[in-house]
Amino acid sequence: MHLQAVADLPEIRPGDDLAALIADRTTVEDGDVVTIASTVVSKAEGRQADLTDFPAGPRAREIAGRLEDLSGEEKDPRFAQAVLEESTELVTDAPFLLTETRFGHVCVNAGIDRSNVPDHDLLLLPKRPTESAERIRTGLLEASNLDPDDGENVAVIVTDTCGRPFRFGQRGVALGWAGMPASRDWRGETDRDGREMGVTVQSVVDELSSAANLVTGEGDDGTPAVVVRDWAFGDHEGSDNLFRDLDGDFVRHALRDWRYDPEERR
Amino acid sequence: MHLQAVADLPEIRPGDDLAALIADRTTVEDGDVVTIASTVVSKAEGRQADLTDFPAGPRAREIAGRLEDLSGEEKDPRFAQAVLEESTELVTDAPFLLTETRFGHVCVNAGIDRSNVPDHDLLLLPKRPTESAERIRTGLLEASNLDPDDGENVAVIVTDTCGRPFRFGQRGVALGWAGMPASRDWRGETDRDGREMGVTVQSVVDELSSAANLVTGEGDDGTPAVVVRDWAFGDHEGSDNLFRDLDGDFVRHALRDWRYDPEERR
Repeated sequence: MHLQAVADLPEIRPGDDLAALIADRTTVEDGDVVTIASTVVSKAEGRQADLTDFPAGPRAREIAGRLEDLSGEEKDPRFAQAVLEESTELVTDAPFLLTETRFGHVCVNAGIDRSNVPDHDLLLLPKRPTESAERIRTGLLEASNLDPDDGENVAVIVTDTCGRPFRFGQRGVALGWAGMPASRDWRGETDRDGREMGVTVQSVVDELSSAANLVTGEGDDGTPAVVVRDWAFGDHEGSDNLFRDLDGDFVRHALRDWRYDPEERR
Repeated sequence: MHLQAVADLPEIRPGDDLAALIADRTTVEDGDVVTIASTVVSKAEGRQADLTDFPAGPRAREIAGRLEDLSGEEKDPRFAQAVLEESTELVTDAPFLLTETRFGHVCVNAGIDRSNVPDHDLLLLPKRPTESAERIRTGLLEASNLDPDDGENVAVIVTDTCGRPFRFGQRGVALGWAGMPASRDWRGETDRDGREMGVTVQSVVDELSSAANLVTGEGDDGTPAVVVRDWAFGDHEGSDNLFRDLDGDFVRHALRDWRYDPEERR
């Protein structure tokens, strides 16, 4: 497996054609997986925003006030309003905003970025990252003269980075994907001793996003896209279930029942 | 960045020298990162075990009985005993055993494997994976004639796969590492717009483990080791904090206070 960052992408502006910009700078081949950081997808899709776009309602003012009390730092209720508008659910009563975005991804602040946004206050996540991935994939197939009807394929993953429970640090994750399933399902296959493997669904889009993040880094220095070559999904069952809902996730049940107590943590 | 699985490793037995087995099959160069699945590290370290090694105490019997009631499936209290002996803490009252292992890793069943173990019932995780990584690294440096005193380096990561909240599927994670820090700390560095980045610690050992898992897969078909080439940690601050403790993890706080209610989920 080989990963190569796409060099010299310009600063992305609303309306830019990411597929064309990538295809101009690198050759995309049959079987490649192309990862693209959600920041540049958002920029191309005009997801820049300003705090003045989000006049705070009562719930946002209450949330910001509470976060201010807990942290001792000033909190802008318009930011809380933006997070609420991008989310279907506030997942927890934590001392920060962990929400489920409208497309099912659980992350802090609905993934709204306050850096990397020239001339604006905020950068929202792509509205429907899987549709973004599909659009970019169509563009890359065309620009590369590859035809799925001839058995040729390119996959595209829109990536982000986020933290997680139990372990420090952030790692790359997938927000949307096209041209491949999200996971390899190994259930029913056997290990090398011939025993059937248990619950083993391998989240390959997340693993590819993590791998790509090693190459792009966090500095966003002009290499937000990566071409992954010589990797194949292989002959496995696939699944597109990536985001757990409340029912399937005991941690979300626990968080729902939990109330944050700052005294307990001092 | 290039990843290549080490081909044709034999079935690993207690006492095997993994560094020598790897160095016999591939050239390890200055700057490489070598990942090794914890299963083979455990096998080399004699961590095979049998249920008869773990006569169940009262707590294990109580836990197994409870899991049996919840699942309707028979549960062996000796397995619960093995999990307890490998753990410092039962993290949650979930319908399965989520624990913190003695080296700080939170996972299901203390990472004890019931497949991939010829002639035994169980395979326990390496006792101290970072010491395992250090030992293998020393062996690889010697076998490859690389000398850290001359500025040469090889890093080693002992990997596993596990699930996570919020997202379906498993991905590769690091259990132990040597020759590199666990994380790149980007705090204080600036993004391309010149703004200082916020809390951005990139867990590179986990990302490398995920990348390697794309190459090894779950089938354990004789390629548990991967050489990562042309990747550099780079000129960043490093941190070896990988496993969150209770204080730093609001999800663990929430889980501590939570009681599983099977009725609620029907």
